[in-house]
Amino acid sequence: MNCAKNKLAIVGVGHVGSAVLNCALSFNLAADIALIDIIEKKAIGEALDASHGTPFTYSPNVHIHAGGYEECKDAKVIIVAAGPSILPGEKTDRLLLADRNVQVIKDVMTAITQYTKDAIIIIITNPLDITLYCAQNLFGYPRHKVFGTGTTLETARLRRILANKYAVDPKNVHGYMLGEHGNSAFPAWSLVNVAGIPSDRLDEYFQPAEPLDREKTAAEVVSVAYDVLNFKGCTNSGIAMVACRLARSVLFNEGSIFPVSTTLKGDYGLSQVALSLPCQITATGVTRRLNVPLPAAEKEKLHKSAASISQVLRSVGLVG
Amino acid sequence: MNCAKNKLAIVGVGHVGSAVLNCALSFNLAADIALIDIIEKKAIGEALDASHGTPFTYSPNVHIHAGGYEECKDAKVIIVAAGPSILPGEKTDRLLLADRNVQVIKDVMTAITQYTKDAIIIIITNPLDITLYCAQNLFGYPRHKVFGTGTTLETARLRRILANKYAVDPKNVHGYMLGEHGNSAFPAWSLVNVAGIPSDRLDEYFQPAEPLDREKTAAEVVSVAYDVLNFKGCTNSGIAMVACRLARSVLFNEGSIFPVSTTLKGDYGLSQVALSLPCQITATGVTRRLNVPLPAAEKEKLHKSAASISQVLRSVGLVG
Amino acid sequence: MNCAKNKLAIVGVGHVGSAVLNCALSFNLAADIALIDIIEKKAIGEALDASHGTPFTYSPNVHIHAGGYEECKDAKVIIVAAGPSILPGEKTDRLLLADRNVQVIKDVMTAITQYTKDAIIIIITNPLDITLYCAQNLFGYPRHKVFGTGTTLETARLRRILANKYAVDPKNVHGYMLGEHGNSAFPAWSLVNVAGIPSDRLDEYFQPAEPLDREKTAAEVVSVAYDVLNFKGCTNSGIAMVACRLARSVLFNEGSIFPVSTTLKGDYGLSQVALSLPCQITATGVTRRLNVPLPAAEKEKLHKSAASISQVLRSVGLVG
Amino acid sequence: MNCAKNKLAIVGVGHVGSAVLNCALSFNLAADIALIDIIEKKAIGEALDASHGTPFTYSPNVHIHAGGYEECKDAKVIIVAAGPSILPGEKTDRLLLADRNVQVIKDVMTAITQYTKDAIIIIITNPLDITLYCAQNLFGYPRHKVFGTGTTLETARLRRILANKYAVDPKNVHGYMLGEHGNSAFPAWSLVNVAGIPSDRLDEYFQPAEPLDREKTAAEVVSVAYDVLNFKGCTNSGIAMVACRLARSVLFNEGSIFPVSTTLKGDYGLSQVALSLPCQITATGVTRRLNVPLPAAEKEKLHKSAASISQVLRSVGLVG
Repeated sequence: MNCAKNKLAIVGVGHVGSAVLNCALSFNLAADIALIDIIEKKAIGEALDASHGTPFTYSPNVHIHAGGYEECKDAKVIIVAAGPSILPGEKTDRLLLADRNVQVIKDVMTAITQYTKDAIIIIITNPLDITLYCAQNLFGYPRHKVFGTGTTLETARLRRILANKYAVDPKNVHGYMLGEHGNSAFPAWSLVNVAGIPSDRLDEYFQPAEPLDREKTAAEVVSVAYDVLNFKGCTNSGIAMVACRLARSVLFNEGSIFPVSTTLKGDYGLSQVALSLPCQITATGVTRRLNVPLPAAEKEKLHKSAASISQVLRSVGLVG
Repeated sequence: MNCAKNKLAIVGVGHVGSAVLNCALSFNLAADIALIDIIEKKAIGEALDASHGTPFTYSPNVHIHAGGYEECKDAKVIIVAAGPSILPGEKTDRLLLADRNVQVIKDVMTAITQYTKDAIIIIITNPLDITLYCAQNLFGYPRHKVFGTGTTLETARLRRILANKYAVDPKNVHGYMLGEHGNSAFPAWSLVNVAGIPSDRLDEYFQPAEPLDREKTAAEVVSVAYDVLNFKGCTNSGIAMVACRLARSVLFNEGSIFPVSTTLKGDYGLSQVALSLPCQITATGVTRRLNVPLPAAEKEKLHKSAASISQVLRSVGLVG
Repeated sequence: MNCAKNKLAIVGVGHVGSAVLNCALSFNLAADIALIDIIEKKAIGEALDASHGTPFTYSPNVHIHAGGYEECKDAKVIIVAAGPSILPGEKTDRLLLADRNVQVIKDVMTAITQYTKDAIIIIITNPLDITLYCAQNLFGYPRHKVFGTGTTLETARLRRILANKYAVDPKNVHGYMLGEHGNSAFPAWSLVNVAGIPSDRLDEYFQPAEPLDREKTAAEVVSVAYDVLNFKGCTNSGIAMVACRLARSVLFNEGSIFPVSTTLKGDYGLSQVALSLPCQITATGVTRRLNVPLPAAEKEKLHKSAASISQVLRSVGLVG
Repeated sequence: MNCAKNKLAIVGVGHVGSAVLNCALSFNLAADIALIDIIEKKAIGEALDASHGTPFTYSPNVHIHAGGYEECKDAKVIIVAAGPSILPGEKTDRLLLADRNVQVIKDVMTAITQYTKDAIIIIITNPLDITLYCAQNLFGYPRHKVFGTGTTLETARLRRILANKYAVDPKNVHGYMLGEHGNSAFPAWSLVNVAGIPSDRLDEYFQPAEPLDREKTAAEVVSVAYDVLNFKGCTNSGIAMVACRLARSVLFNEGSIFPVSTTLKGDYGLSQVALSLPCQITATGVTRRLNVPLPAAEKEKLHKSAASISQVLRSVGLVG
């Protein structure tokens, strides 16, 4: 019964889950990390390999081990990276994975809820908004304790792209990608700024090689995901950082704000759909969903993105 | 001409090289990381994916990018992870890879030496002692500036296995695996101790479930590499930590001691062969190779391991 | 000579300089840290004490040592914390220190410039804008390579105070304190936002116990400095973090934006005065000073703050 | 009741306690840090100053605050740095402080035990072995949950001195200072080695400027404490690192071995005295005290050191 031992469980240790493991170690997130995979040998192999880093100076002596869902019992955070990903060449849409991965998430949540309703669950499995909706609404799990990584990754990509363009630290680039984690995500340009300079004056201050093209930039944020996928065969480093940063906000009760996916309850007139809005993450999960001020054009994009997600939710039978 | 910008180049960004990249980022090793791969798109994909982590609090704003060998020009450290690995199921021997990867290393070193003889080069490519021998002896590169990760990984595995057995922090387990990086590596039991308690008295102090079986433990250190390989399909987390820990000792001029692979010059009566002995690593590379005191039986194992490596060196034509 | 060994010099190791040393160690800023103090024994004592932390796992093996100004020769960054501070009870104004510390900075800069004009110099000595003006204008040192910590500390205090009020992570609180490092610093409320929500709508979104009182908050940012001073006898933890964060942006070439103090050249119509505006910090120093858009009322506050600094600059004879 | 929020309490925030606070923050030890001091304003000042570092990238958003002993209720670790220190010039002996600080520790433990018997308590207050004996034996606190920093600091000093002499990373220097935290501490030379090379052969391997003089080195380890004290006016950086490293071993359940002070129970024939022997530190406190093999001469030194401590224990009435 030792609370001191922060425990993390990772469900699914493919490309993404194993990157989450290594990122979690470098973040000093937990004293105990359990790996759960339907192919148990995969989990054992990942645990062994990572454990061989622990004897080194600068590496914490974390207890890394494979296990079953009973490991969730005393976990503080569970990161779910189970289920197949889009493969290179499948340049279509994350939503095509829906049928398969909704079933995966149902299996995972059924198994988790046998052991705990206390842990904060962070969903990574794609199509993210669909699997999150399923996880958050079908299992009686406390709603604020489940969320999806959402457009936090797209937001990082937007900030990196603008940071490259204007040659500044991306930590000085503010603003969010909102909506679907996927093709209909959009930048809320009205919130984008660098050190308080709004997006429509950035060119004037930073004199980039080419002026800012909002449409092109928005498209690049979405398409770079496919570049990564096609060039390296998977995407894992960026999303692992997202999941671990979110887990850190939980485990350190930081109250940080990220655009994560949750089920809406009338926000901007939307319900029965999950998508990403800026949310505050604390030790008790999502404690606040911010309906940030958006101009009409951006509200419209949000509604369009919601419609795209709703269609899939209906087609897989999650919404009537 | 900015020395402040510590630069790291990684040659080969397969499973191992991409793990090195992510580990290097978490270690804050460098302000600039160049990725070089014969498949340039792979390098671009890895650079993009990792760069998407940089906007996050706690992640440094490192310049991560793909490039050609000209990137080596101002690199402080070059980590070479090029060349194919053993594949799962090939449970035989790293030495079988020799022919193919000696050619890879020749290509890599030829390319690097067009641009620099200043950087410290850390070789990971297997069979390690063969490729290191090639890199260190055929290109006129300053000898102390090239070394191989060697049995640093086996040493970590030995410490982890003993740490598990005796339920202690592996950082309190001392001693080394010496010789070949591969099947003939052996524990120098005479040096092994936990907090100063020698290996033959550990059972008495820590009362493990089963007494220490030296042969079995030595065999487990070697076989666990194949477990990782077969269970997860590659080994990368542990070796990435090794390479980055060594790079840190260079970049911070730490003078740390690790069993890395270098070409021997009469050590224990051995020459014209490369294998791992404890070496001191500073900003100028390997500054000292320690011929630690070994009893006759362990010297014999060292000679046997050297013979095994020499045979391959001859068969690939690196030694006459 | 070895660029790999990032070197930091700290001039003045009183309460502030010794805090800078310990913060620099925890940030892994440098492989070599030289401490320079007119009381050499103080520097030796601090170097010894900090060096006793280096044997521990998780602590880098940094070379920490006392020395003379010749240590600046190969330093990448020099942090100047020399000169007496305001003492508890002296609740008046940093500007009173001007006469004494302008002489200190003259001595320090004269000594530094005997050995280098390459290092980036970060000034902490108060009254900051006065000493910075002196350092930046009287010694022929490359202008972009000298800057003062400025209102970066006040900015952190503003963000922390608002973070407490609204129960959010201060990393989600954006905006700056501008002007003098001292009593006439002011919040540029027009730039303040939390996750894109402007300062005048924060109460609506976060429902604090009491509504935001801008005047009171601005006053609290200034007065909390005196609270720290009077309650603990000095201020050092916060300012040490500021200096090391700035040094990190230099050493990692991050291009981060901070409100540091530099001499203005017509910015907002102001010249011959130094004060804090958002500036971009890279490996080559201050590469950009941002004249962020400010409404008339805030411009007026900036001019008032400038006037207050100018008066002291004239009274100490730095401006004719 | 949120276990995720690791909580640390620091009792006494003078020079040492405030250094512990800053070190704990850099170690990411806890999400919540409470400062308790009889001068409440001192605790408030330290909390404010440190909190001003939290808005910066790379600094965790920790909740740092002053409070009363009720803060101990849900603390995982309590570090006690209360009571006056030896002052510069008082070059005599830590034991002179005994009377005063035994009373301080009695007050502190009486207050703590009103709220918890669960937290792990780490004592720093000098004379350490006396105050630890008092804390561990008079308040019915679970014995394994209380220990003193002991000769962990002297051990670090020994390793640093040998690392300087032989120009190696102190993390490769093994062995311990044992006995009293103070003048009668002694190096267990039989356990000292560098990378497995025993202390009597180090000169041969590393060829230092002067041969190893064991007596002189042992004396230097003790006297350097007074150098730090006299040169900088206090000792705090090193001891803060010790305390936080020990707390890390608790909070991450690392099972690391350190020479900490505990009450002996027949170890080497000694009882009714507290002194430092290598002990294993886990989430439940001290789980093992290792009676490492010592030759007769070192056992004799241990007994002498114990006698010196016993005399004080009797003189302050803690042992009959």
